Amino acid sequence: MPIIGIDLGGTKLAAAVFTEEGAILDEETVPLGGMMGAEVGALIALRIQKLIESSRVKGNEIRSIGISVPGIYYPKMGTVWAPNIPGWGNYRLLDEVKRIAGVIPICIDSDRVCYILGESWKGVAQQCDNAIFIAVGTGIGAGILADGRVLRGANNIAGAIGWMALERPYRAEYAHCGCFEHRGSGEGIAKLARETILATTGYEGILKDKDPQTITAHDVFQAGEMGDPVATTILNQCIELWGMAIANLVSLFNPAIIIMGGGVFGPAVKLLPAIRAEAAKWAQPISMSQVSIEASGLGNRAGLFGAGLLALQNSKPH
Amino acid sequence: MPIIGIDLGGTKLAAAVFTEEGAILDEETVPLGGMMGAEVGALIALRIQKLIESSRVKGNEIRSIGISVPGIYYPKMGTVWAPNIPGWGNYRLLDEVKRIAGVIPICIDSDRVCYILGESWKGVAQQCDNAIFIAVGTGIGAGILADGRVLRGANNIAGAIGWMALERPYRAEYAHCGCFEHRGSGEGIAKLARETILATTGYEGILKDKDPQTITAHDVFQAGEMGDPVATTILNQCIELWGMAIANLVSLFNPAIIIMGGGVFGPAVKLLPAIRAEAAKWAQPISMSQVSIEASGLGNRAGLFGAGLLALQNSKPH
Repeated sequence: MPIIGIDLGGTKLAAAVFTEEGAILDEETVPLGGMMGAEVGALIALRIQKLIESSRVKGNEIRSIGISVPGIYYPKMGTVWAPNIPGWGNYRLLDEVKRIAGVIPICIDSDRVCYILGESWKGVAQQCDNAIFIAVGTGIGAGILADGRVLRGANNIAGAIGWMALERPYRAEYAHCGCFEHRGSGEGIAKLARETILATTGYEGILKDKDPQTITAHDVFQAGEMGDPVATTILNQCIELWGMAIANLVSLFNPAIIIMGGGVFGPAVKLLPAIRAEAAKWAQPISMSQVSIEASGLGNRAGLFGAGLLALQNSKPH
Repeated sequence: MPIIGIDLGGTKLAAAVFTEEGAILDEETVPLGGMMGAEVGALIALRIQKLIESSRVKGNEIRSIGISVPGIYYPKMGTVWAPNIPGWGNYRLLDEVKRIAGVIPICIDSDRVCYILGESWKGVAQQCDNAIFIAVGTGIGAGILADGRVLRGANNIAGAIGWMALERPYRAEYAHCGCFEHRGSGEGIAKLARETILATTGYEGILKDKDPQTITAHDVFQAGEMGDPVATTILNQCIELWGMAIANLVSLFNPAIIIMGGGVFGPAVKLLPAIRAEAAKWAQPISMSQVSIEASGLGNRAGLFGAGLLALQNSKPH
């Protein structure tokens, strides 16, 4: 019996029907196009309804549904907190989907959990009981598989790696999103470039003709490849911070693999050898010798495959 | 049926017979007195033999044996690596104990795992599925209970928290034991005090009459309480580092409790409010609001109780 995986992002919705072996039978992606609140929930429900029906036409009843959300899911209440979707401060997604799904089981989880589940199912972490997915995009989060199970913590918010303390002393800028995310996220890279260029008198580098306020992390990577000194300094600092963060996860979790993904990896994949060398300086040496550090094997479909595995693992009706 | 718990330290051996409810029926501690290699193994076997016999005399057969070792246990080979016990680079402890125990099940694990098990059984982490014990002594290690299970990692060396990277840039001194342990362990505190005093011309503080080479962490705590400026600076740095390390564990694991133990906590227990305030600056704020940070409830018996729980959890013969 096939399963449905749904991956809700900040700007688009991906949906797929999988076989139990992970082959994709049907897949589609639609833009959110500025939708808000209940509209997004209705869009998800509609996609699910269409996939249930088109599957039924082919004689296949859907066995289970998995949904990846860009935020935190509170299973006791069935609600989602998703900061990038307006009106999803406390959105009752489970009720909305149940209305369509009827007796078909539904499982919802955060994107970072789905990323590591996806990689463990069909990506670079297959057969790994200890694997970590570091998602570096606008923010930074981690999905952690420890001794064969997703790490959840006392209140289901484990893996908030963006808050990792990596450099003394504390600075007020860290209060909003954490030390590591402030410096090592896509938004952190862009912000640091803007500030540095504005503060550099006589800056004549690659980005000199750009309005500093519009600089993105992507611009910084491009400028770095062309030898821009500001971009090079910022990216070297990122290599150091990403290396330290990886080292800390290696020493703490003794994982078999750490996977770098999200929009920044992406362009930062080229830096992986340098990041690995930095991590090797800091980490527990035996654990370091046992870990592989790799780019995502599924790219922007990691969350979709993870939603599929969520569905597969949760086939009991509620 | 009672169980035996054994806690091997670097300088002494503690042994106890517990009821299944955790009441101590019999307990004794003997110094190692410079014993090495197989002598230590023979001492453990002898203690176990005596406890089995004395229990039998009372009509109680021992159900299971648990042993805490100051290093790493390799379950596949039944060997222990314990750096502070001469000749225990790869010691076959399981075989030695089996000779005495016969069909009684034996379970061996590292001290840091036993500390958190002990606290979860009879200390301050009872009813906690997510709890971390940070042992700060000569070195630094952590025992981690995540979602109800001890975190082990791909090769059973998870929890090597002494290697945590907390301050850029990397320095060669970290190569031996890791950044956090180099600065935040008992040995790190003592070493930093020795170096600082030797480098301070005209030092007239509390420790001025002491041969710098003999200064211990205990001396630094005493001098700190008496207002010595060098000790105060070092302890303030420790508060910062311990706070950052706790914050990183809070953000990553979302635990219900973090327990500070080992020889340094001890005297550093007085600093817990300051350490908690430092951690609160850095950690994911929701997780931070949900965690309690406490001193060990069992003190130097955490490992002994942990060995007891090991025995209780492992009652199947091999």
